[in-house]
Amino acid sequence: MDLRTRALRLHRESKGKMEVVFKVPMNSMEDLSLAYSPGVAEPCIEIHNNPSTIYDYTAKGNLVAVVTDGTAVLGLGDIGPGAALPVMEGKAILLKRFAGVDAFPICLDTKNVDEIVQIVKALSPTFGAINLEDISAPRCFEIEDRLRMELDIPVFHDDQHGTAIVVGAGLQNAMRLVNKTSNNVKVVINGAGAAGMAILKVLLQLGYTNIIMCDSTGIIYEGREQGMNPIKQSIASLTNPLGLTGSLKDAMEGSDIFIGVSVANLLTKDLVLSMNTDSIIFALANPNPEIPYEIAKEWGVRVVATGRSDYPNQVNNVLAFPGIFRGALDVRATDINEDMKLAAVEAIASLVNDNELKDDYIIPRALDERVVQVVASAVSKAAISSGVSTLYEPVLKS
Amino acid sequence: MDLRTRALRLHRESKGKMEVVFKVPMNSMEDLSLAYSPGVAEPCIEIHNNPSTIYDYTAKGNLVAVVTDGTAVLGLGDIGPGAALPVMEGKAILLKRFAGVDAFPICLDTKNVDEIVQIVKALSPTFGAINLEDISAPRCFEIEDRLRMELDIPVFHDDQHGTAIVVGAGLQNAMRLVNKTSNNVKVVINGAGAAGMAILKVLLQLGYTNIIMCDSTGIIYEGREQGMNPIKQSIASLTNPLGLTGSLKDAMEGSDIFIGVSVANLLTKDLVLSMNTDSIIFALANPNPEIPYEIAKEWGVRVVATGRSDYPNQVNNVLAFPGIFRGALDVRATDINEDMKLAAVEAIASLVNDNELKDDYIIPRALDERVVQVVASAVSKAAISSGVSTLYEPVLKS
Repeated sequence: MDLRTRALRLHRESKGKMEVVFKVPMNSMEDLSLAYSPGVAEPCIEIHNNPSTIYDYTAKGNLVAVVTDGTAVLGLGDIGPGAALPVMEGKAILLKRFAGVDAFPICLDTKNVDEIVQIVKALSPTFGAINLEDISAPRCFEIEDRLRMELDIPVFHDDQHGTAIVVGAGLQNAMRLVNKTSNNVKVVINGAGAAGMAILKVLLQLGYTNIIMCDSTGIIYEGREQGMNPIKQSIASLTNPLGLTGSLKDAMEGSDIFIGVSVANLLTKDLVLSMNTDSIIFALANPNPEIPYEIAKEWGVRVVATGRSDYPNQVNNVLAFPGIFRGALDVRATDINEDMKLAAVEAIASLVNDNELKDDYIIPRALDERVVQVVASAVSKAAISSGVSTLYEPVLKS
Repeated sequence: MDLRTRALRLHRESKGKMEVVFKVPMNSMEDLSLAYSPGVAEPCIEIHNNPSTIYDYTAKGNLVAVVTDGTAVLGLGDIGPGAALPVMEGKAILLKRFAGVDAFPICLDTKNVDEIVQIVKALSPTFGAINLEDISAPRCFEIEDRLRMELDIPVFHDDQHGTAIVVGAGLQNAMRLVNKTSNNVKVVINGAGAAGMAILKVLLQLGYTNIIMCDSTGIIYEGREQGMNPIKQSIASLTNPLGLTGSLKDAMEGSDIFIGVSVANLLTKDLVLSMNTDSIIFALANPNPEIPYEIAKEWGVRVVATGRSDYPNQVNNVLAFPGIFRGALDVRATDINEDMKLAAVEAIASLVNDNELKDDYIIPRALDERVVQVVASAVSKAAISSGVSTLYEPVLKS
């Protein structure tokens, strides 16, 4: 049975993948009178009198909303909020499976940025954190920025930051392997959407100084006229210090690292052969990468990572987002900030030690049960030290 | 340990009463590749191509949103959406416990009717039905009316219709017991809020012709000037055929049935003694009724029902809403209409047979496991015969 048949059968036979269950006794009248009327009035009164006790008496502190408008679902594009529901259910149960986080899909039948912001704000009393998912760029940037600013619970766009964190972790380990340093390599990022932008930000924080970003028009540079917008303008000012112009081919010449968040089978043999020795390729187009794993290896690429589970070095967001939400919720963080994201990068990278590190093992495997705990702990600590935990004061170093 | 201590402890120790769990295998990479990327793309594509298959491939068909704005929570009033969360969690798990329905709390941080309507519409792709809860009158009427009109999934306001259905069932059985008929009795309903309005509608459909409604100003009648509004205007035109005026005392004189959805300990001895023989009192104020059960019995009332679980004849909505949602979801109804509500009234009443029926047993008990199945089945049939099932055609009687 092929994947399509197996996937449809699984979904059809289970009628969805999640359910909402009770975790208190519901057998006797006494049980009901505590969980519901009249006893339930007591926690209501407590929360009304002291709003922060909502974390003590309800599920809020462990609940994440998985919010989409269905405009950029997987590689399928704008398929609408209903058709996006299987993905959001899947995301919700991954949070439960890997981090014990309760999550619920919120598929919004509107594409209006103001409305999405307003609705998520109105929904926020029930939730401890918000995960934005599969919302198209550049709308996702504004929605995330505004919600982070206006809400006192963390807001995280996994398509951006989850991917960027796992790429960052894998890249740090690949660099250890080839013995190059971040301020001494040429990096090409192909694709200037949500994921590309977030990867750029992480790489800048990791000290990469020579990054060239390309979109379908070619290299992004200051002064380019075709296909620019305010976001690409800011890319131009943050990248490409030598002012390269031209096509992806011009960017690839002599590069050490290629990161693709673009389209399948884009990398031709001459592009790959024009890279520096000990080249590193992250080919993350889904489901088919910019270059198949075996072909890249055949053409001499030293380290190859893709999004696929059937090859080594899978860049899988499940390494990041469960531990990040777990860590943020555990210390009741008000934000998932850059410190917390970098802590996640280092935590994931640290799980591949020097003895294990090799060309085909730079990233922990998706089912590595150590990951969530290590990431959560690092993220919690970073939340506390950066002052966004509402449970713990930052410990000042003497 | 008193109720307050027990209720707070239960909520604190469990940190809320519900969780979201997965119901598909999540162990191997193969499991993940079916439940999430890449396999999950397949049901997404199917739903995108054929929207009604969302019921086959997702949890939508069994999912109810429990929506509140926190403005009329239990007897506590406008305590806000956060403080309302324990009640909404409780409602959600009652649906699971009694009817296997998955439900999720949606506590909205807005009181604006237009916004609430807009938000619930935007959220609707994920849900198979909407339960409105603890929204203050008269806003709840407009919200319910507009959502019923604009959504293609059922919308039900349990505070209104759930209560009215159980009252209707209990009253039908009480009337069997005292051998009176609906067109030959005088009924007083005290309280013209959401529940009072819904009870009035059900009683009119059950053939009660002489109903007097009172509010805090007294009897509602055509031509009254004090404290009227469009809803009370419509009450005046539907009730009080003899044009009574005056206070609750004037209404009670010679009445057969009193139904209170108002305030505790309102019924004095002279009011009760002014009723007809074989009098029936539904004293539904929460948590303390308009008259305590024992006192009413002591003063000679024949049948007494309250909202309390510690006395006979408890009017408990849990007899109605789980079966109603089960029945509506099972046949994928687009509405919960009057036929379905009356079918629920008859189904609940039918569970007390002639041999069992007595003054202190007119309504099945809350934990009677037969109720949900009988109600669901009756509601499904009524949905089909009234043409609101999208799965089954009405069977025409020859």
